[in-house]
Amino acid sequence: MTQLTLYIGNKNYSSWSFRPWIALTAAGIPFEEVLIPFDFPAGNPRFFEVSPTGRVPALHHGPLRVWESLAIIEYVAELFPERHLWPENAASRAIARSISMEMLSGFRALRGACPMNMRREKRKIVLPEGVTDDVARISTIWRECCEMSGGPFLFGRFSAADAMFAPVVNRFDVYDLPVDRDALTYMDAMKSHPAWIRWREAALAETWIVPEDEA
Amino acid sequence: MTQLTLYIGNKNYSSWSFRPWIALTAAGIPFEEVLIPFDFPAGNPRFFEVSPTGRVPALHHGPLRVWESLAIIEYVAELFPERHLWPENAASRAIARSISMEMLSGFRALRGACPMNMRREKRKIVLPEGVTDDVARISTIWRECCEMSGGPFLFGRFSAADAMFAPVVNRFDVYDLPVDRDALTYMDAMKSHPAWIRWREAALAETWIVPEDEA
Repeated sequence: MTQLTLYIGNKNYSSWSFRPWIALTAAGIPFEEVLIPFDFPAGNPRFFEVSPTGRVPALHHGPLRVWESLAIIEYVAELFPERHLWPENAASRAIARSISMEMLSGFRALRGACPMNMRREKRKIVLPEGVTDDVARISTIWRECCEMSGGPFLFGRFSAADAMFAPVVNRFDVYDLPVDRDALTYMDAMKSHPAWIRWREAALAETWIVPEDEA
Repeated sequence: MTQLTLYIGNKNYSSWSFRPWIALTAAGIPFEEVLIPFDFPAGNPRFFEVSPTGRVPALHHGPLRVWESLAIIEYVAELFPERHLWPENAASRAIARSISMEMLSGFRALRGACPMNMRREKRKIVLPEGVTDDVARISTIWRECCEMSGGPFLFGRFSAADAMFAPVVNRFDVYDLPVDRDALTYMDAMKSHPAWIRWREAALAETWIVPEDEA
């Protein structure tokens, strides 16, 4: 099979890169990884060479370019149906996609105030309006899904939906956001996953600093 | 088969409702439609009865609730594979999902400044920063997809990707945004589609006014 190449940004900061990376890695799907560091303030023109949006992540498969984290996951899920990136039950899969798209399109307050930062030491910040609502809604999603499936992940085994929420686990953690015990249980499962540990270790080894993402 | 019920907002304003509605209608999929009018400024508590996010659209299928426009489309595409809501070619389908998710997560400047408004008379507005970039990127998507497929829709026949961009056709039109001839050709195809015409006629018959969406 033609090789899959996933273009990503800095592992410390690029939450959108983390999502397809952990989905593919957790499912044991082979791919080559190419990291293009963010190069602030001017931006790195290489991003436009790999994606029509000028943003990572992007997946190249022969002549095909796929962009947007969740579109990459959908494409790979179709290529490797036996790896079950989505839950096998149709109703669970529908809910998994609903919450994944809620993540893709929403939670702007949280995303703006609390950028993913794998290296950051746990420390509270003053939370702008809307962040507490985002935290509450995400905690509800996690609790309801884990209750329905029995956990430890949202739909039992690690799925594409967990990949979409993986960067949020870091945010809840390093900004010490107000979470309940159910959320902490889910966060512990995520932070113990071998794919999470592998990404985080690589992030900690990076030396690039992006001041805009140091909240 | 158990009936599908699609909960939507005002047809004049609810761009997110329009997307799954036109996808299902254009594909000839039977569903019951329930319109819950926006009830500003307090919001309409009925939205929380039909969706855990308190937003429309939401699809009910027996006990299952699916939310987020594109998750609804994915669910229905799986229920009715013979209707081909997505392009049949895997590479085209990957690009269709990439641009659909780009729409779902982006183009915030355009969406904020130019709310969908089916009733609005064509009239230019002063465009805030970012809108022109959004218009240019969307025009490029439309041109490249129609060139690749031969048109008249993004992937030949009407697909889920066209459904995701349907409300943008109204925005480009009624705010008289700076578009090229290729975009106008695509917009004409969209505005001639029977499903578009049906939605628009119902929107024109509505009498509710939402001041926030009258830019």
